[in-house]
Amino acid sequence: MAEKKYVYLFKDAYGLGKELLGGKGAGLAEMTHIGVPIPQGFTITTEACTNYYENGKKTADFIIRQIDDAIKAVEQQSNKSFGGLDPNKTPLLVSVRSGARVSMPGMMDTILNLGLNDESVKILAKVSGNERFAYDSYRRFILMFTNIAKGHPRTNMDRMLDKIKEDNGYKVDTEVNAEQLKQLVKDYKEYYKKTFGEDFPSDPYVQLHEAVEAVFRSWDNPRANVYRQMNSIPYSWGTAVNVQSMVFGNLNANSGTGVAFSRDPSTGKKEVYAEYLPQAQGEDVVAGIRTPFHIDYLKNQMPDVYAQFEKTIKSMEAHYKDMQDMEYTVEDGKLYFLQTRNGKRTAAAALQIALDLLDEGVISEDEAVLRVEPKLLDSLLHPTFDPKALKAATPLAAGNPASPGAGVGHLSFEASDAKARREKGERVILVRAETSPEDIEGMVSAEAILTMRGGMTSHAAVVARGMGKCCVTGCSAAIVDEEAKTLTINGKKFGEGDTISVDGSTGNIYEGALAMVPADTKAGNFGRMMKLADKYRRLKIRTNADTPKDAMQAVEFGAEGVGLCRTEHMFFSGERIFHMRKMILADNVKQREEALAELLPYQRDDFYGLFMSMKNLESINVNVRLLDPPLHEFVPQEEDKIEELAKALGQSVAQIKARIEYLHEFNPMMGHRGCRLDVTYPEIGRMQARAIIEAAIKASKDLGRDIEPEIMIPLTLDANEFRFVKKIITEEADKVIAENKVKMVYHVGTMIEIPRAALLSSEIAKEAEFYSFGTNDLTQMTFGFSRDDASKFLGDYYANKIFESDPFQHIDQKGVGKLVKMAVKDGKEANPNLHCGVCGEHGGDPESVEFFNAVGLDYVSCSPFRVPLARLAAAQAEIKLQRAKKASK
Amino acid sequence: MAEKKYVYLFKDAYGLGKELLGGKGAGLAEMTHIGVPIPQGFTITTEACTNYYENGKKTADFIIRQIDDAIKAVEQQSNKSFGGLDPNKTPLLVSVRSGARVSMPGMMDTILNLGLNDESVKILAKVSGNERFAYDSYRRFILMFTNIAKGHPRTNMDRMLDKIKEDNGYKVDTEVNAEQLKQLVKDYKEYYKKTFGEDFPSDPYVQLHEAVEAVFRSWDNPRANVYRQMNSIPYSWGTAVNVQSMVFGNLNANSGTGVAFSRDPSTGKKEVYAEYLPQAQGEDVVAGIRTPFHIDYLKNQMPDVYAQFEKTIKSMEAHYKDMQDMEYTVEDGKLYFLQTRNGKRTAAAALQIALDLLDEGVISEDEAVLRVEPKLLDSLLHPTFDPKALKAATPLAAGNPASPGAGVGHLSFEASDAKARREKGERVILVRAETSPEDIEGMVSAEAILTMRGGMTSHAAVVARGMGKCCVTGCSAAIVDEEAKTLTINGKKFGEGDTISVDGSTGNIYEGALAMVPADTKAGNFGRMMKLADKYRRLKIRTNADTPKDAMQAVEFGAEGVGLCRTEHMFFSGERIFHMRKMILADNVKQREEALAELLPYQRDDFYGLFMSMKNLESINVNVRLLDPPLHEFVPQEEDKIEELAKALGQSVAQIKARIEYLHEFNPMMGHRGCRLDVTYPEIGRMQARAIIEAAIKASKDLGRDIEPEIMIPLTLDANEFRFVKKIITEEADKVIAENKVKMVYHVGTMIEIPRAALLSSEIAKEAEFYSFGTNDLTQMTFGFSRDDASKFLGDYYANKIFESDPFQHIDQKGVGKLVKMAVKDGKEANPNLHCGVCGEHGGDPESVEFFNAVGLDYVSCSPFRVPLARLAAAQAEIKLQRAKKASK
Repeated sequence: MAEKKYVYLFKDAYGLGKELLGGKGAGLAEMTHIGVPIPQGFTITTEACTNYYENGKKTADFIIRQIDDAIKAVEQQSNKSFGGLDPNKTPLLVSVRSGARVSMPGMMDTILNLGLNDESVKILAKVSGNERFAYDSYRRFILMFTNIAKGHPRTNMDRMLDKIKEDNGYKVDTEVNAEQLKQLVKDYKEYYKKTFGEDFPSDPYVQLHEAVEAVFRSWDNPRANVYRQMNSIPYSWGTAVNVQSMVFGNLNANSGTGVAFSRDPSTGKKEVYAEYLPQAQGEDVVAGIRTPFHIDYLKNQMPDVYAQFEKTIKSMEAHYKDMQDMEYTVEDGKLYFLQTRNGKRTAAAALQIALDLLDEGVISEDEAVLRVEPKLLDSLLHPTFDPKALKAATPLAAGNPASPGAGVGHLSFEASDAKARREKGERVILVRAETSPEDIEGMVSAEAILTMRGGMTSHAAVVARGMGKCCVTGCSAAIVDEEAKTLTINGKKFGEGDTISVDGSTGNIYEGALAMVPADTKAGNFGRMMKLADKYRRLKIRTNADTPKDAMQAVEFGAEGVGLCRTEHMFFSGERIFHMRKMILADNVKQREEALAELLPYQRDDFYGLFMSMKNLESINVNVRLLDPPLHEFVPQEEDKIEELAKALGQSVAQIKARIEYLHEFNPMMGHRGCRLDVTYPEIGRMQARAIIEAAIKASKDLGRDIEPEIMIPLTLDANEFRFVKKIITEEADKVIAENKVKMVYHVGTMIEIPRAALLSSEIAKEAEFYSFGTNDLTQMTFGFSRDDASKFLGDYYANKIFESDPFQHIDQKGVGKLVKMAVKDGKEANPNLHCGVCGEHGGDPESVEFFNAVGLDYVSCSPFRVPLARLAAAQAEIKLQRAKKASK
Repeated sequence: MAEKKYVYLFKDAYGLGKELLGGKGAGLAEMTHIGVPIPQGFTITTEACTNYYENGKKTADFIIRQIDDAIKAVEQQSNKSFGGLDPNKTPLLVSVRSGARVSMPGMMDTILNLGLNDESVKILAKVSGNERFAYDSYRRFILMFTNIAKGHPRTNMDRMLDKIKEDNGYKVDTEVNAEQLKQLVKDYKEYYKKTFGEDFPSDPYVQLHEAVEAVFRSWDNPRANVYRQMNSIPYSWGTAVNVQSMVFGNLNANSGTGVAFSRDPSTGKKEVYAEYLPQAQGEDVVAGIRTPFHIDYLKNQMPDVYAQFEKTIKSMEAHYKDMQDMEYTVEDGKLYFLQTRNGKRTAAAALQIALDLLDEGVISEDEAVLRVEPKLLDSLLHPTFDPKALKAATPLAAGNPASPGAGVGHLSFEASDAKARREKGERVILVRAETSPEDIEGMVSAEAILTMRGGMTSHAAVVARGMGKCCVTGCSAAIVDEEAKTLTINGKKFGEGDTISVDGSTGNIYEGALAMVPADTKAGNFGRMMKLADKYRRLKIRTNADTPKDAMQAVEFGAEGVGLCRTEHMFFSGERIFHMRKMILADNVKQREEALAELLPYQRDDFYGLFMSMKNLESINVNVRLLDPPLHEFVPQEEDKIEELAKALGQSVAQIKARIEYLHEFNPMMGHRGCRLDVTYPEIGRMQARAIIEAAIKASKDLGRDIEPEIMIPLTLDANEFRFVKKIITEEADKVIAENKVKMVYHVGTMIEIPRAALLSSEIAKEAEFYSFGTNDLTQMTFGFSRDDASKFLGDYYANKIFESDPFQHIDQKGVGKLVKMAVKDGKEANPNLHCGVCGEHGGDPESVEFFNAVGLDYVSCSPFRVPLARLAAAQAEIKLQRAKKASK
């Protein structure tokens, strides 16, 4: 049997795919194939990386043999000698770079100029006629090898170069001359020997093997791990390694290097966007040591090279049918491309490019829809800081970019204060150690929220994203003293009168007011792309909204209804919380019904507002969920509030406290909540059913249109239970309809958020008219951990690669998804009219939307600011599904 | 189409089955069929009952018509006239009785003598020649109808009879004469009119229809609901109603009534066990108003009747092939049987009868195994009170019969006190408001445990059942003052010196020391039946045991290994808890490892003891589960303990408190526990792995036998997670094995107790060697409620018939069971060697064992005192399964 291949020359690798070659390797093979001038070389596959890790972090002998054979082939291709081993030939020097399946820019390591040693450097000096260049390359190589292959910090070696510059009064590196560089090389090698107890390796094969392993290792470095986790890239993929002949942009005056985009990555404008830095290596550009020139420099200096450059770029874009991001080098008047990839772009550019390519006839309509990453859209929905102002400003501190957007205002340390000041027209930033449900009004009133504690899924973060409100959480450098009403950052104290700017997209905090630019969601490209998306998607898009304001915002963004109205959020403001507490702490049904009667008008008005907010839609779809959280979340802790309640209920303070104590639960998440409350206190469900139906009747009359309200029972786990609660609801609803002498169709369905409900779907579906998957709770129950508590150990799960992505962000398809799929299938078999949607936060996650589309949900519901994203994601999901179906035929 | 039949004459109903006719109806049809003399009548089916409830608690017209037709048919059969409507015929009087699919003795209602009115009573008096009898029957009927059909309490009407007796100085009812009874009938009817505002119904059809509905309604009365819940009888079944011609044991001196068993229900001895009460109706016997005579009375008085009686009984037993419990009546020298059923019996009798029937060749071996209800065995395992002593004593109060057995001792109010006094040889009853893990030692030391709070699944109840320790929980009449060390019941105060007796089988508490009889588990029948069971069962039986003592007890009862050793239970006693706390509160790995090193010898000794306790078995199977509970369960609350720890750890009290605070969780059940602890603190898993392997090596050497220890990872939810923890375990285990220069095979597997683990079984099974289903936690997670918190609302779920049985007692086959089935199937497909068991409390529940056998588990593990039950249940499960397979072929 032939030996398995772990190493491919670029010229032999075309068509082997990114899984094996990594993105960069596949690109180089493809460029070779289509005749783009590139320095030749080879790719060590991702399987070699996996083998390295499985083999106890050691490259297997048979892989080393294949690498050595490949280097010899490149020697032949180029007629050069690796590491100058043959003094009669030009030395072959190589770069060693990582290349994962998807681009992970800057996360892994690269070593350049490999192959230099005391012999080859002399040949290089001779061949190039540039001794300074040769020793500068050698110096750089020793530095990179020491830093990356040996994992030693650069600091001391950088200082040695700095000392030469200081001693001689040089300002820039290029002033250091050949002799000085020669000495520096000597000093570097001595430093190396002192540090590691061995000579710097002069054997180019030893250099190469160590460099390859260093790149393998860099797959597992902390920043790569964090990046992968953020972008859901599996650890198991591994990285490929590309070994490529060096070309030198710093060889002479006819040399240089640069980066080029086939279109403007910032605006999407159809013109080559490129920079050129003469007499430099790519490193210099990336490190920002020297500022590159406009591409016109090259055009003027070497018009022929430029012509070839422009032509090749266009041919590459034509080949890839997408905007390309390329690195190139000119070596002594000869042009080489070093890599190409689909270019990263801003949201605006993504829209522009996709639509231009469509209009140019390069791509089809459905392909254009696929070209825009849904999560990019978010940045187009929120007002943002003026990029110029941002560039000029220095952040005070940074936290988690919990909810994008920009906020400028005076500091406010208390919800009620924020509300009061906002009502007087002042713009405030709510600054809290962390937020709780009682801060909701303050959050609504603030321009942005800043918390000292909490991550991307903390209360502040979740609520703020739901509101589309700018929010930075867990800014640990910001010491918040809520009592003293001060915010201290790096020793600097800010008070209520001070202004800060909060950038929710980056997590940065700035002193003073940065200039802002408004979001323009009506821009032509945006609207056009949304229309295209709507044409291709099968899923309906609804929104999770508790207030008419949120609901109207969502409709503005294209929502087709309310998929989840959480009634409990309506109970916190003003007098309502008092009546709510009276209801909860009542010690008999009569008192409870009295308190509920006080709450009824509030609820009815809220629901009326929600129905009315849908009036511009073809049909008015509002889904109201009955009270869900455990009651103890509403009870007061403050003595004065308790006394007030005791008085109102004619009970003693001790009685009230005893009842509050009784409400305490060991595991509130698994306690007395959801429809379990309606089983115990049917009067709560009755009040809510009445409020919904009365509101719908009023809205229906006012609009002169039919409305079919949807009433959702939370936390169902059994068909009997559903039937029991449904009966409470329908009896009251039918009564209200009869009292009003009208006709009204309404629908009763359930959340599916308990594993057992999913397992018993075929029974429950016979009773329920619709399902809404509450994937937040379903994830918690299926994993058996609560989101609040899991934060203590999930870090260890990521660090040890047990989990590679956050199941609360992307639906866990294998576990939770299996339940969803099963429940939809069984449910629709039992009740073909069953309407199925999702209202967990996954409804606004593109990856999850793709799954929901595939398993046959009818709609997804997400927070208002995720609606455009969901529309696009739903379209992409359906396009991919249809393509996959076609492909499998 | 023929009208659906809801009513069948006994003579037409043979073979229709208990589902439709109920047990009593099917029995009457069968007795008619085999020629037993019974009073004729008809059965109204269970479907009629269901129809009654579905029809808004109203009997449908077509059912009433069928009832009326049936009564007419009985009139013809008997040549009597219903309710004396034809004055030329003997009046047809009937009884109206409930009859569910399974016997629910005394739970539902009966009305006798129906058909009497002012006319028919006169005819009856004439026909019987006994005016007193006729009016006494009439009086009884009015009383029963008022009480049962109209739901009115008997009190006032009983008082009216008492008054006659008082006024005339009578001692017993029979002294009341005909004239007085005539007057009483008048008074009763007046009382009825006054109470209900209408005349007592004289129309026999009206009487009948109301009585039938009353029986239907009694299906839903509170005691029937509680009984069903306790016995897992579905509410949906409904009850049948039997309408049967009355015969009168109180007609004259040649009349009487009684109850007969074809064998002794108490001992199982093969002889008719019967009682006879002359001149009486069954009611008199049941109500205990008069004491019946030995059956010899009948034999002497009417030898011919007796001969027929004995012959019929034998023929019935021969027909049913089981011990029969019969009601019979002699009316004017003519024998009637009123009903027959398989007789309830004690555990001892059940064994005796089953084995006798086997020896007599009446039933087969597998049938004999099926004849003993597994849960009966429990009563044979624990010492019990002498039945005579019990009969003579009056309980002080009653609580939940949480764990059977009998305990006598002095009161002890503290665990340490109980332990200290036990060590001095004193027998104590541990009395607590409720128990916590810190009380374990006290519970071990006590003869019985009595708690003021807590139900059948409280800490005390679960732990006590696990120990096979007598326990009564939730005895709310017992006011426990732990500080004052007093127990107050109904105002009477008991202190430490006082003795009480606790009956765990009934929940009763007695003052002083009741006489006891020891349990004899070696009795011949018991041993023989267990051997038969072992022959038929496929499932292996293991035990959940944390100590050698428990494990040895379980082996004594037939356990074949330890299925679950909960290591955390080992950390509470003596010094261990101190080291455990040091480990938990350590603020670095070094401190933690030091504390773990102190714990290691304890753990090793414990495990060694467990291995050794299995030495008499063919192979030594011990499955040890790694630390499972959240760490905060172990930390101290007391100031002095905290100070002591701070000192030992060189930390400040504030630091320790902060760390304890940090351990607080919102939902501890879904928090940092199980293998999540090993992910964060691998050193814990390493210590435990070392302790297990070192103990196994030592035991293996001492016994000169191979031991293959099983190490179980709790709370797994992902294959990566399992792999990660398994690696920690295997690395340390292999190290220990290498250090000791021995060979040892060990097995690493996992609990399946998180829904996701069951869903991902096909992945996890590739890594795991065994599964043990932790159905307690799996039930909690699948239902989304915690057992502790659910007690607040489960009552409402039972009351509203949402749940019919406790999912923690009997496995929820539809939900949790679906996950178990799926996980076993997927797991065994992925890994054919996967060994599957269950170690939740369901492992000791016969109904659940039947399910586990059917889904293909390899073993069940239960607490020691449930082992015999599990052996028998497993045999029955397999016999039923094989029969079902055969039947379906």
